[in-house]
Amino acid sequence: MRKLLVIGIGTGNPEHLTVQAINALNCADVVLIPRKGEAKDDLAEVRRQICVRFITNAKTRIVEFDLPVRDQSGEYRQGVDDWHEAIARSYADLLKAETAEEGAAAFLVWGDPSLYDSTLRIIERLKRIASFELAIDVIPGVTSIQQLCASHRIPLNRIGDPVVITTGRRLREGFPTGADTVVVMLDGECSFRHLDADGYRIHWGAYLGTPDEVLIEGPLADVSDEIVTRREQARAVHGWIMDTYIISRIAS
Amino acid sequence: MRKLLVIGIGTGNPEHLTVQAINALNCADVVLIPRKGEAKDDLAEVRRQICVRFITNAKTRIVEFDLPVRDQSGEYRQGVDDWHEAIARSYADLLKAETAEEGAAAFLVWGDPSLYDSTLRIIERLKRIASFELAIDVIPGVTSIQQLCASHRIPLNRIGDPVVITTGRRLREGFPTGADTVVVMLDGECSFRHLDADGYRIHWGAYLGTPDEVLIEGPLADVSDEIVTRREQARAVHGWIMDTYIISRIAS
Repeated sequence: MRKLLVIGIGTGNPEHLTVQAINALNCADVVLIPRKGEAKDDLAEVRRQICVRFITNAKTRIVEFDLPVRDQSGEYRQGVDDWHEAIARSYADLLKAETAEEGAAAFLVWGDPSLYDSTLRIIERLKRIASFELAIDVIPGVTSIQQLCASHRIPLNRIGDPVVITTGRRLREGFPTGADTVVVMLDGECSFRHLDADGYRIHWGAYLGTPDEVLIEGPLADVSDEIVTRREQARAVHGWIMDTYIISRIAS
Repeated sequence: MRKLLVIGIGTGNPEHLTVQAINALNCADVVLIPRKGEAKDDLAEVRRQICVRFITNAKTRIVEFDLPVRDQSGEYRQGVDDWHEAIARSYADLLKAETAEEGAAAFLVWGDPSLYDSTLRIIERLKRIASFELAIDVIPGVTSIQQLCASHRIPLNRIGDPVVITTGRRLREGFPTGADTVVVMLDGECSFRHLDADGYRIHWGAYLGTPDEVLIEGPLADVSDEIVTRREQARAVHGWIMDTYIISRIAS
């Protein structure tokens, strides 16, 4: 049976790697690194740094491959569905070509494989279409939520209170009910601008855990414009941005 | 200025330690380990293993100390408040006694310091009452949520959908609105029994990341009793239990 190691690598600081992740990397015959679909050169560079720094097994090969491109013209969910199917097929070919029957391959996943990442979902498809048996091992990693809190030196939840993790798209439909603390991910549009700025505090961070980290926090009314501006500037400089934030209701 | 390193150590697998955490441990003059308040011997043992395995700096000392005990007789929030104040005072004394003016001390926190942990809150109090200046560094760690998903090999969220993190006490008030996926932590009472079992699926795990890990998953109606029974048995054997679970609404 082939083995597939799905390794969480944290948010861009190579030192987010756990001992477990380093050991898994060195058990793999091949580490599979996507070439396209990651135009973000800085991120590709972090993956390379991780491999160079932590792979000590001379038999571990690194294979770069081209990811299929998502068709963004049609309906969102159907587009994602087709895309995942195409990726699953390319993974199946890759594993067949690059690993022996008892071999192990590793994928490196930003943050943790459980959170807003599709690798595990794609692997489920892969298992259905592959002509070989496959065992999966998932190695957890530090998410941007943990790094955001660490960088701001804050707890995520209030004592005994719930937290909602959601997306920018969902936040634009309104602040979630039933929680005073909300983590927003996958937000390309500064969706906090849709909230009543007087009622909330924000802890925002971009390029978390990297030397380029930017942090802004304060009452939303005071810092909303600053975040929008800094975000634009940073994205222009780097050519990409990954940011995350916590919105908390100000106790009235 | 003294430095305080608050280090997330993951869920009980010593290999959850990140490279950043190991480096931080070895920068500390002293690692402060609570003796009481942690009757759970297995957990104390994991902390010791981590220190023995990863501290290579001969100058790093390990100091065990007694935590104040929480008065559980009165109102919950007031009891926690008084307890945190007492801990903050004991931290202040400890840091003054065990570190030089430019020295660094480390605390090891289960999981990640941001999630249902009070260390950062207590340190805020400590900063207010201490007679010395203090810089805080937080090092993120793997939480039981990530390990739960990794062990079950599942993504946490559905595509683009929100997730609620909450407590057993809150779940007993009803399944949160606005999300189909809920992570439940701090639940000593199998609060999933308060839900309509037909509507939900559960992914449950105890002693996550350790050799004693127990995993159960399935429709709540099918596995609810099994979880209650296995949880009781495991707690009787170990003398303690830490468990976490994900409840997801079954699409109707």
